[in-house]
Amino acid sequence: MKVMVGGTFDPLHDGHKRLISRSFELAGRSGMVIIGLTTDTFASRKSHPVRGYAERKAALIDFIREQGLAASYCIEPLKDRYGSAIDEDFDALVVSEETLPIAHEINLLRKEKGERKVDVHQITCVLAEDGHWISSTRIYRGEIDDHGRLLAESVENRPGESTGT
Amino acid sequence: MKVMVGGTFDPLHDGHKRLISRSFELAGRSGMVIIGLTTDTFASRKSHPVRGYAERKAALIDFIREQGLAASYCIEPLKDRYGSAIDEDFDALVVSEETLPIAHEINLLRKEKGERKVDVHQITCVLAEDGHWISSTRIYRGEIDDHGRLLAESVENRPGESTGT
Repeated sequence: MKVMVGGTFDPLHDGHKRLISRSFELAGRSGMVIIGLTTDTFASRKSHPVRGYAERKAALIDFIREQGLAASYCIEPLKDRYGSAIDEDFDALVVSEETLPIAHEINLLRKEKGERKVDVHQITCVLAEDGHWISSTRIYRGEIDDHGRLLAESVENRPGESTGT
Repeated sequence: MKVMVGGTFDPLHDGHKRLISRSFELAGRSGMVIIGLTTDTFASRKSHPVRGYAERKAALIDFIREQGLAASYCIEPLKDRYGSAIDEDFDALVVSEETLPIAHEINLLRKEKGERKVDVHQITCVLAEDGHWISSTRIYRGEIDDHGRLLAESVENRPGESTGT
């Protein structure tokens, strides 16, 4: 299957890793994954600083190699919310709960252009220790690490510190 | 991956076939597909007559065998909208555009019960020749066949009949 997925992926946290792993799993060994990676200009609209395109791309490639993800893949610049997902011939779009509305927008735009609609695979977001979603913004704020561990609490829970003794 | 899908599947039209094929594709060769097949009592709420459970089950098994779909599978009775999807440990629910709301209900109920939410894979419905969805109701009404071909038009288009000559 040919699958598309997109994002800024910085830092590459456990939620992103699940999105990427699942995309490769859906595509299958003989399938194809197209990863749209936001350009620096587009990513600059985020509320927190973002590493450069080349660095973010390298982190994605490292992860794909480390995990031995089997499908073919390409990483292409994503200049807006939709990128090539409006025109490309593919089977399924992989999104998170957060980006699900974009998938519906893409299918509407495809329909308007006479392109066939694509399957939408919505993954369940990875939760941090506190039961809220892991997000880059929360990591940047120092609330959690990239695995969703609470950073403030981990300080509070140090022996001899948590109880004030 | 372990995948769940459900339906009445009568008659087993091209839309159902896509739902089943995609479920096996997502599961992968080493994965598992659980097919919830509505019981006769639950299916009797449909607006059109439905064949018995055993006959519908046999049609599903024939299709899976003919297509050589590789994943392990089981067909289990579906007595209500949710069946075992509330309690079962699995990865993704496969739904059509029509049954997408049920997937969201299932994830809400899972969350309330403290079960982890599952991925939702929404396939794009197969369109009939007239651009509307293929559905069992339309087939039962005699509007289309199980591949979505327009039956009324095919009669009108018979040589010598369409123009009234």
